[in-house]
Formats: sequence, structure tokens, C-alpha cells
Amino acid sequence: MTAPVRGLRPAASIGRKRDGHELTREELAAFVGGYLDGSVSEGQMGAMLMAGVLRGFSEAEAFALTEILAQSGEQLDLSGLAGPTVDKHSTGGVADGTTLLVAPLLACCGATVVKLSGRGLGHTGGTLDKLEAIPGMNVALDHAEMLRVAGEVGCVVAGQTERLVPADRALYALRDVTGTVESPALIASSVMSKKLAAGAGTIVLDVKAGDGAFMAGEDEAGALAELCVSIGERAGRRCSALVTAMDEPLGHAVGGALEVAEVVELLSAPPSGRLAEVALALATEALVSARSMSPSEAHEALVGCWTSGDALDRLGHMIEEQGGDARVCADPRAVLPAAPVAREVPAPAGGAVTSAPARAIGEVAADLGSGRAHKGDRVDPAVGVEMRVEVGDVVAAGAAIAVVHARDEEAAERAASRLAHLVTLGEEAPVRRCPVRRHVRSGRAGNGPPSR
Amino acid sequence: MTAPVRGLRPAASIGRKRDGHELTREELAAFVGGYLDGSVSEGQMGAMLMAGVLRGFSEAEAFALTEILAQSGEQLDLSGLAGPTVDKHSTGGVADGTTLLVAPLLACCGATVVKLSGRGLGHTGGTLDKLEAIPGMNVALDHAEMLRVAGEVGCVVAGQTERLVPADRALYALRDVTGTVESPALIASSVMSKKLAAGAGTIVLDVKAGDGAFMAGEDEAGALAELCVSIGERAGRRCSALVTAMDEPLGHAVGGALEVAEVVELLSAPPSGRLAEVALALATEALVSARSMSPSEAHEALVGCWTSGDALDRLGHMIEEQGGDARVCADPRAVLPAAPVAREVPAPAGGAVTSAPARAIGEVAADLGSGRAHKGDRVDPAVGVEMRVEVGDVVAAGAAIAVVHARDEEAAERAASRLAHLVTLGEEAPVRRCPVRRHVRSGRAGNGPPSR
Repeated sequence: MTAPVRGLRPAASIGRKRDGHELTREELAAFVGGYLDGSVSEGQMGAMLMAGVLRGFSEAEAFALTEILAQSGEQLDLSGLAGPTVDKHSTGGVADGTTLLVAPLLACCGATVVKLSGRGLGHTGGTLDKLEAIPGMNVALDHAEMLRVAGEVGCVVAGQTERLVPADRALYALRDVTGTVESPALIASSVMSKKLAAGAGTIVLDVKAGDGAFMAGEDEAGALAELCVSIGERAGRRCSALVTAMDEPLGHAVGGALEVAEVVELLSAPPSGRLAEVALALATEALVSARSMSPSEAHEALVGCWTSGDALDRLGHMIEEQGGDARVCADPRAVLPAAPVAREVPAPAGGAVTSAPARAIGEVAADLGSGRAHKGDRVDPAVGVEMRVEVGDVVAAGAAIAVVHARDEEAAERAASRLAHLVTLGEEAPVRRCPVRRHVRSGRAGNGPPSR
Repeated sequence: MTAPVRGLRPAASIGRKRDGHELTREELAAFVGGYLDGSVSEGQMGAMLMAGVLRGFSEAEAFALTEILAQSGEQLDLSGLAGPTVDKHSTGGVADGTTLLVAPLLACCGATVVKLSGRGLGHTGGTLDKLEAIPGMNVALDHAEMLRVAGEVGCVVAGQTERLVPADRALYALRDVTGTVESPALIASSVMSKKLAAGAGTIVLDVKAGDGAFMAGEDEAGALAELCVSIGERAGRRCSALVTAMDEPLGHAVGGALEVAEVVELLSAPPSGRLAEVALALATEALVSARSMSPSEAHEALVGCWTSGDALDRLGHMIEEQGGDARVCADPRAVLPAAPVAREVPAPAGGAVTSAPARAIGEVAADLGSGRAHKGDRVDPAVGVEMRVEVGDVVAAGAAIAVVHARDEEAAERAASRLAHLVTLGEEAPVRRCPVRRHVRSGRAGNGPPSR
């Protein structure tokens, strides 16, 4: 270990965080840099992360950490792209196909979307897994290729490359095994470092709240959203966030091919349903920030592109430019892989749907093969669950509440039986709530001049 | 990583401690064992230690951890030794030669002392370094050799072998660099695991309090003493502790040869002074526990051995059996190495000594070469500081307040100048306080039958 700068010794910084002090940007940079170059040990980083989880990090620390992580690797330069650039991030949920709607919608409305997506884990799905259900689709693009597709189409959705935010990846891997995931500042800095490195001028965040989300409480999700927006704004980006419900699946389909088909079918008709509602709300936020439109102007423009079929065409164009079979946009069920067994799940009795828990339904789909228990597991794009009901619907006894798509009869039977128990029915239908629960906007959003 | 027992996953245990829950003995054993076999990573241990520091460990956890550490390696079997067996531990200080007094005193009073000592670090001294100032002295004994010397002499002082408490060593090395040293439960389990593994039936602890001690506050030191005694008692040992002052050096000499000479000179006359007082108090505690004597009987017996010269003879016998030049007990200054330069430090003015800060004086001696900044540094046995005054003494201007023993004039000059500033003089002499501040005894001490 080379002689460290006095006052920046790793153990001293740990001790300061342990005792509840605020660390300077210089200290944080030395600590994170030291972890990457080996002069701060894994044990020291583990202790620092736990001290941070229990003592908390200030907003200034969270911002400094975000920039340190963002600057730890390559950063995308989007300055050559036309129009304001937009990025979108969701904290993860079940049946959340919003990216596949938001990206082409925004591209139709004059923004350029360069979206780095992730893969599913546990009960949650990932956009890359969904896209890979489309034959030929390539989501492993290098930065030049991403810029080419974005320039050509107006949107691109691909995986984060190894060169982006290496410090975030290193930290996240350690947090995952050291009980230090659940810190608002660490979550926010991880999310926002990727967004800063990805280079877009406008960032819109979808922070999920509910049993199927990372955070169950709306207040907790709201606080995270505010912290992320504050970080984005300090970094000079236009940033806003929605807190949206993740108590039940957002769309109806859970599983790669099923979700792509749902998106295509949604875009083939005027917008309706909860998934469309959240997608339009996110895209509206993005246009308000990126193009200084009023919310109603933005919403109207988006619905126009949706209803005209332009957004679906744009999605097809993107799929084509990423090597995928664009015929999926005309006849998804003909192009997408189908599971050998499809079995309806009948309602055990008649009544109103009182709950359809997102997490458990996500787990049923994951167990069918659509999700992964561990990072690196392969997923089966054909299997999954199609819900036929949502909370508030009234069903007759024996009517289908869901369809299970499985590899074999046994798996279908197991999943169907679990779903029949998971979806609860009551005498009275609960009030349907709007899935968009809160808007968190930075002070400047919608007021400043158009910017990238 | 092999599949861990469900419920004992490292991350889950970390999360439980992070959330303030008490860990089971099984969980702690799996975690510590996993750290030794590599299935718990350094990052996970760092996070667990920090969670423990900030959330605390219960007494039951501290006891479980102590036994887990004690049982991680070889344990000394003292059952073949005559008389009750006694061990003594100090949390470390400046001019603390008590071990070299307590061991032969107890041996003269029918107890057998097997004392595993340590080395100095920073401003504190270590008994092994002091003993090695004696030409020929060997403190690196294997367990068989320790038992032989203890059987022959009644006492032995040697270094802890690599086979003892490997888990404690592994944990301590990590705590040292992760800001997780200062947890009462972790300190107590580290101290007591070594004592349990060392096998003595009676354990007496000297917990220092003051600016030169690990813990500055008497209450804090008292709490640590109580926790250690409670752990010792739960483990079936007779255990008691003293909280003693470490605001000024306990003896007058700081540095290997100087401290050995001070001990020999002390034992050559009737007991007097603070170092003698603390040593007698510790030995009294040990005899009360080990031999069921009353404190006054024990004290009388000890003073008898001291004044008769038996204790000095016993020290000489021990030195001889460990290969050292026993003539040191007759004429220490002739046998021990002497530094080339000895320089008196004159009092800059007349007055009463109001403070002689232990830590800073320890650092002056360490900088002369008697101590080490880093583990593994070599120490110079000949150099150091001899204080000529203590708090409460009245001195005339120009009278010697200390003598510096140095390798060269420059080092002597530097040390002398620092000492002249460190020792403060005032108009009024402060009240002298007894260095023994508290007694912490287990419920059974002195009441049960004699035991090993």
C-alpha cells in the first residue's frame, strides 16, 4: 500500500462515518478509488457500507458518491444525437413493460432515448430478457452501435457495458452479500451514477412502491425519488420521478414473450389500462422536462403517436436495427416463442378480485422459468403467466382468472394451483386507485429552456 | 461456496445484527467459522463487525463469541500443574511492569502463574519486550516448555503461540483496520478468549482508565471489567478485575531495560509507590479468588514474600529457566543494556507537578526507540525515559524531572525538550489518588472452595 494522504487513511474515514460525521468528497473519492485499486480492503469497504447504512449519508455525500461512481469508468457522450436526450429508470417490478412503450413514444415526439436496461432477478422482470424473446434481437451493443441505432431510430434499448460505472458494479456486488443494500443514499447513488454515466440530459425515474417493489411504503419510495431527483438536478440534468404502485402486476403478462406480445397489442389500439397509464405518465414527465411542454400538451402528443400507430412502427424499427424480427409488431404470437402447455386457471368461486399480489405472481412466473433465482441463470422466454383479471374486476365462478404458459403439465398444474390461491376474491370490489401515486419534480423541470 | 445451512446464510446474519437482533451461538459460530474457512468473506466480516459496534452485542453474544474464539485453536491444559493456576491480563499502559511483580509474588504464595504476554504498540509497552531486554531471555516457548518452567518455578511469562485463538487473531487484524476495535463486547471477547484458551482457573484483570489507556473513562473501563468478569464466570473460571489509573505512568521507568531495572529495584526493598500498590492489589485479588484467602490475609502473605526477598529470587529463577541472565536480579544496571546518552531534564521552574500525561510520555519513549509504531517493528531495549517525579511531587527549578536514555545527543535533546513541556507544574499540589479505582468481583469470588 502506498503512503496514503494523511487524514484520508481508510480506517480514519470509516471511524468518522461510524461516529456519524459527514465525509468529504475527497474522502469518499479516496475510499472508493482505493477499493478499486486494492488499497482499501473488502473488509474496510464492508465496514464503511454498514456504518453508512446505520449512520446514514447526507444528501451531499449521496451526490458526491454518485459522481464518483459515474466517473469511475467510461461515460456515454450523446452530444452528437439530434433532439433532447432522455433516459428512464424503474426500480423494478412485475409485468412492467413501460420501457418498451416509453422509448418509441418519446422517439415519436422528438426526443432521443438511449436506455440502458437490466435483467430480471427473483420475482422482478428485466427489459433485456423481454427483448431477447424476440428472435434475432441483440441487446449487447457497444457504445458506437447504441449511438448509431439511437441516431437512426430515435431510441435504443441495450445492456450496460462493462466499461460503465465499474465502481458501482464492484460496490453493488459487495452490498448484495453484506446486508447493505437498503440505504436510500446507496440506492440513489447506484441508480443515478448509471444515469449520469449514460449521458442523457433528461432523466425520468419510476420508483415502485408496494409488495412487489423493492420498497413497500409510498413514503419510503417518495423519499428515494426525491433524493434521486435532487442528485440529478445537482448534476445539471433535468430530472423527475413518479412513485407508482406495484401491489399487483402492472400489466397483465409476466414472462418474456408474453410481455412483448402485450406491449405490441397495447400499441395496436388506443391506450388503455394501468400499464399504458404509467407509461404515458412517465413519457409525459420526460417531455415536460426535455421539451418544456406542458403536461397536457405532452400527454396529447403522446396519445397521438400511440393512436396513429407511429409508436408501434418506431418500436418495429428499433427491433429491426437491433437485429430482431420486426414482424413481431404485426403478428406477435406468430413470431414469438410459445410454451407447449397453456392452461387456464378457473376462479374457485365468483366474486370481486380483492388482491393479486405482484411479488407472489412474479415468483410463480419465475418458477415456471421466466425469471432467475441467481444472477447468470438462463431464462425461458416462452413461459409465464397471463393474468385475465386485476384488482376490482368481478368474475364468475369457473371463469379464467389467468392463463399459465408452461414447459409441461406438471409445472402448469403447480403454477395454476398457486395462482388460484394467490388471487383473493371478496364480496365487494375495492376502489380502483390510479397507479401513479406521486410526482416528484425538480425545481427547474418544465420551466427552463429546452436542453439536452 | 458450499451450500450453507438455511437460516445461517452470512448475509442473513449480518442483516439480523444490522437490524439490532441478538444472534444465536450457532449463528455466531457459523459466521466466525465461515470467516476462517473462507465461506464468509472479509467484506461480510467487516460489515458484521461494524453492525455489532453500532448496534451492540448482548452479554450472551459476547460470552458465545468468547468461547467460539477460545475454541478456535489449541487450548492449554494446566491440570498437571500443582496449586491453583492464575492468569493476569492488563489492557495496556505506560510503565506498567505489574506482570513482572505479580507472577513471582503469586508463585511464592502457592499459586502457579502461566502468563501469556504481548508486545508494545504505539505509546504502550509490552511485557515480552521488557523481558527481552534481559540478555539470553527466551519468551518464545512452546506449550510443553511453558508447562515445564511453570512446574519448576511456579511462574512463566511467554508469548502466545500461533496455535492459540487463531480466530481472535484473524478478527483483531481486521478490526484494527476497519474502525471496529472500540466495541466493549468485541474487546471483552478478544481478551477473555485468550484467557480461557490459556487454561488458568483464576483470572485477574487490570482494566486501565485514563489518557494513557485504551479507555479514558472510569465508567467505560468499569463496564468492560464487569463484562469480562461476567464472561469469565459464565465460563466457569474465578475471575475478578481492577480498574486502575493510567493518567500518568504507573511506574517511573518507560523502556525495556529501564523497566526491568525498576522492577528488580522495587523487589529489593519493601513495597512502595504506585506500581507496587497496583501489583499487590492485583495479586491480592488473585489469591482471594484462587486460594479463598481474605483480602487482608492475601495482602499480608504477599508483602511477606516481597519483603523477604523471596519474590525477587523467584523472578531470578524464572529468568534463569527461560535462558536469561539471572544476575540481573542482583545488579540490574550491570547486566542490562544501557543507552549511550543519558540526559537529565531540568524543571523549567519550581512548583508542584500537576500532570505527567502517560500517553505523551509513552510516545516520547517510543520515539526514542523503546516502542513501535507498527506491529513487527524492532524495539531498542536500552533507550527510554525515567521519570523522577510524579503528580503531587514538589520540585525546585532546575531539579531533574526525568532522565532521557537515548541513542544520540540529538534524540536526547528532542525527547528532553518534549518532556519539559509535557510535565506541567503549578502552585498547588493536586490530591494524590489511589491508583486502584474499582474492584469488580464475580459473585462467587472468595466464597467458593479453592479451585484451579
